[in-house]
Amino acid sequence: MSGTQTPDIRTQPFSKPVDTAEYLFTRLRQIGVRSVHGLPGDYNLVALDYIPKCDLKWVGSVNELNAAYAADGYARINGISALVTTFGVGELSALNGVAGAYAEHVPVVHIVGCPSTISQRRGMLLHHTLGNGDFNVFANMSKEITCEITKLTTPNEIANQIDHTLRQCWIHSKPVYIMLPTDMAEKKVEGARLKNPIYLDEPENEPQREDYVVDVVLKYLHTAKDPIILVDACAIRHRVLGEIHELIKKTKLPVFVTPMGKGAVNEEYETYGGVYAGASSHKDVLERVESSDLILTVGAVKSDFNTAGFSYRTSQLNTIDLHSTHTVVRYSHYPGVGMRGVLQKVIERVDLNKLNVQPIDHKEAADPKPNASGTITQDWFWPWISHFLQEDDVVVTETGTANFGIWDTRFPPNVTALSQVLWGSIGWSVGAAQGAALAVKDLEANRRTILFVGDGSFQLTAQEVSTMIRSGLNPIIFVICNEGYTIERYIHGMDAKYNDISAWKFKELVTVFGGTEDNVAKFQVRTVDELKNLLADKDFIAAKRLQFVELYMPKMDAPRALVATAEASAKTNAAT
Amino acid sequence: MSGTQTPDIRTQPFSKPVDTAEYLFTRLRQIGVRSVHGLPGDYNLVALDYIPKCDLKWVGSVNELNAAYAADGYARINGISALVTTFGVGELSALNGVAGAYAEHVPVVHIVGCPSTISQRRGMLLHHTLGNGDFNVFANMSKEITCEITKLTTPNEIANQIDHTLRQCWIHSKPVYIMLPTDMAEKKVEGARLKNPIYLDEPENEPQREDYVVDVVLKYLHTAKDPIILVDACAIRHRVLGEIHELIKKTKLPVFVTPMGKGAVNEEYETYGGVYAGASSHKDVLERVESSDLILTVGAVKSDFNTAGFSYRTSQLNTIDLHSTHTVVRYSHYPGVGMRGVLQKVIERVDLNKLNVQPIDHKEAADPKPNASGTITQDWFWPWISHFLQEDDVVVTETGTANFGIWDTRFPPNVTALSQVLWGSIGWSVGAAQGAALAVKDLEANRRTILFVGDGSFQLTAQEVSTMIRSGLNPIIFVICNEGYTIERYIHGMDAKYNDISAWKFKELVTVFGGTEDNVAKFQVRTVDELKNLLADKDFIAAKRLQFVELYMPKMDAPRALVATAEASAKTNAAT
Repeated sequence: MSGTQTPDIRTQPFSKPVDTAEYLFTRLRQIGVRSVHGLPGDYNLVALDYIPKCDLKWVGSVNELNAAYAADGYARINGISALVTTFGVGELSALNGVAGAYAEHVPVVHIVGCPSTISQRRGMLLHHTLGNGDFNVFANMSKEITCEITKLTTPNEIANQIDHTLRQCWIHSKPVYIMLPTDMAEKKVEGARLKNPIYLDEPENEPQREDYVVDVVLKYLHTAKDPIILVDACAIRHRVLGEIHELIKKTKLPVFVTPMGKGAVNEEYETYGGVYAGASSHKDVLERVESSDLILTVGAVKSDFNTAGFSYRTSQLNTIDLHSTHTVVRYSHYPGVGMRGVLQKVIERVDLNKLNVQPIDHKEAADPKPNASGTITQDWFWPWISHFLQEDDVVVTETGTANFGIWDTRFPPNVTALSQVLWGSIGWSVGAAQGAALAVKDLEANRRTILFVGDGSFQLTAQEVSTMIRSGLNPIIFVICNEGYTIERYIHGMDAKYNDISAWKFKELVTVFGGTEDNVAKFQVRTVDELKNLLADKDFIAAKRLQFVELYMPKMDAPRALVATAEASAKTNAAT
Repeated sequence: MSGTQTPDIRTQPFSKPVDTAEYLFTRLRQIGVRSVHGLPGDYNLVALDYIPKCDLKWVGSVNELNAAYAADGYARINGISALVTTFGVGELSALNGVAGAYAEHVPVVHIVGCPSTISQRRGMLLHHTLGNGDFNVFANMSKEITCEITKLTTPNEIANQIDHTLRQCWIHSKPVYIMLPTDMAEKKVEGARLKNPIYLDEPENEPQREDYVVDVVLKYLHTAKDPIILVDACAIRHRVLGEIHELIKKTKLPVFVTPMGKGAVNEEYETYGGVYAGASSHKDVLERVESSDLILTVGAVKSDFNTAGFSYRTSQLNTIDLHSTHTVVRYSHYPGVGMRGVLQKVIERVDLNKLNVQPIDHKEAADPKPNASGTITQDWFWPWISHFLQEDDVVVTETGTANFGIWDTRFPPNVTALSQVLWGSIGWSVGAAQGAALAVKDLEANRRTILFVGDGSFQLTAQEVSTMIRSGLNPIIFVICNEGYTIERYIHGMDAKYNDISAWKFKELVTVFGGTEDNVAKFQVRTVDELKNLLADKDFIAAKRLQFVELYMPKMDAPRALVATAEASAKTNAAT
């Protein structure tokens, strides 16, 4: 034994050495990232040099929270995104944005440039530290809001760590955290594996277990008198919309969406029934869903704001819930049986002869009448704006009146709706719209990005409009000017000063941020006629420049769904 | 025994019941807070109703990070401050600001309005949660960046918890975190104790141990040939400037400050020697400090940016370090012996006959000559701006050129300097300036607040200028327009695109944010003469409105101290 020499793989030269940063960014390029969001900081600068080398674009956002929101929006359109920040100061500023991506199942790769491994070992008193020599404290803070944390400190392990972490990000559809020390960015790792793509397929369900669940599901489906499908957020985020559309096409089952599922289903389908959100649903929808004897939910997130304050009047005895990691049939749980496999087999095995399909009774709802005074009211606006939307639009709505108003907006086919109903961080939509518009551009898609955001929320992240201009993006931005935090007013403090905001000349911001007549246009709309005229304008419709609209609505006006949900929230908050 | 009844104090009615929120805000008022920073969110709205009732003002900032920065600035002038955010989204947005206060020893009380105790027990799927029923995850994230976390869930304990937590905040001069559930805000607690102020005195050193240390300190002080004092950040933050001035007045010992200690000592004192920052110090200062055979440091924070890249050439054998929690004499550590007691006894017991005091040789440095072209250069600007400063000014400098440039600015008496040299989060200074100016106003002090911030940093937090206007504050804001992140350029990527920023029309922001000729004035200054004229203007000097100055400097120009420190940082980052 002693005569033979086993080569030590730890010191063996790599067969095709590449720098760590190059490996990482090449992998990101391979899985579909085209633009990387973030801010420079001295602990990530060397890594940033590799971005153009790996055929990626750098998006210097205006601050880290905005960059995180933008990465969230980018991932929702593009499938996945990347965010680069610097140690301590940068990453902590981004945390709320990353936590939102975690709550809402959005795959964002958060790369944090950090002090060198040597500085860390020596416990040096560096800037951007707490001054206590602890270099793990910030990574620890990210543990609960990411599905994987990895620290790239050992060249032999780095390629594997990166591949594994990116896979976790994709299959769990959640953020991951990659710590990249300054001295590692240029360290060689094994590049030979770059020629094989990262394996991104989800783990399959155990076949026998899956068959058992499919049998149970089909048993209830075949015997139900009025089965329906209810599509929710996780169906979008865990990428089973293809399966859902196949199921609908094959079975003609009535299909509804939740607020967080809005846009998941082509609303022009004969079997599309509308938005179900418990007591705040339209009467027809409410009656239809709540009288069904079998509701097949896909990717449900039964949160307060997604259910109009937990106001479902449905029974679990009439419910089958398909989730990404498990299935629930009535009260029986089937852990480890994810929805994709179940849906595929249900599509394959469903017996159309046994299925009772009650068609949707499409009553053509008349458009609400505008206010006689010409004031733009919430109840008129949201159904009416349907006429402005086009096939393929990306519609971003902010927490507040927009998120609730959009329930009443009928979408043309292939409209993608972005909202943050569970996490509900005000200001998110401005960053998200930037990311979404950029993803559309990167994908060379011919889609408009349209943002609806309240004035209060807009103020938190307003300067991300600067990044839109700088990146040559052409979203349509409607800032709903109604003097403050209307959603809060309806929960508590209708006239309280803390729900007021400072009066800004909002549309002038596009000029401050460097917009010119060539690349931006700004509008102010105070009446129904002004709005109709603007939205009938061919140039406006074409959206070839960034268009910024101040849209005035009454201060105390709110969509009906918001009023109901806010009332429920106030009760929950006060319950004793 | 069984015949007697002991009243159960847990159910005993309170002798003077007050609501929890009233108790909390009354205590904050008592310890000196006058304005509370933050943003409304539905989990804190009921609590916010108590703010005016407790004779406090609400400052609705434009976002939570800005509010946290503002609370930091407020505390540095006022002594302590309070910040109110909402669960999840709000508190996480503020984390970077709170972490900065922790790193830099600034006492900020962070109050987080959170879901009701009932919702928490039931694990309800509420907005602003991660959707996993875990209501402790965000408080846990704050653990490492606060010195105390408290959750107000039990009325009998609340008064005690609040008093204890506010005391910890004050004596450690670090942030604390108070979780206030919605259903607790109006719950009664014992208000009788409000008539006695919270005990805020620091714990005293054990006398015998303290005497021992004082003897050791005096032994070295009395035998040294050229002892000097070096004052640093923690001397300011742990409030021993009174003791330091007493010591200087009594002993006439030469005194120097570090960059983080700048402003701690009256620079017009005969014994004031200047700013010591290792190799980047002025030659006279460097020689004087490094040739001293006894350096008594007070509140030292020997971080990279505070020491121009660890470039001290001093020996620990010639050093005594006084800290808030311990003392180090040469290599001997004395845990538990804090600086206040030691300083007081040293002042009392120092024998002036035994003390060797070598006076400072004050060479009147000539002002640098401006650039012949009239361009405003960093090397000319910072010494020259001394002439504009007045007694009592508050000077806020941002990470970047301003933080290093200010080393060369001579201060009139009682100038307070705010900077974030250790944490170094860009954008901090805009929020901090708002908080500082507000504290000045609350204290009814006649002080100007003057902010120097680079254009790159300004963009991160620009909208806090809106809060300044809304609050009727009159700071002078100099935005150094030099096309990007100059400090990063000097560390890495001098011409890299990621160090560029978008070109804004900066001064127009004050109009967008609602400023009028009555309350704001805006200026653009591109040459030495233009600057001199503006700064000679009586109206400008009087600072009766918010004044916003675009100050153009060359893109690649940096103060000499920044160049040296950046070079050292680049080396540390690359070390292998």
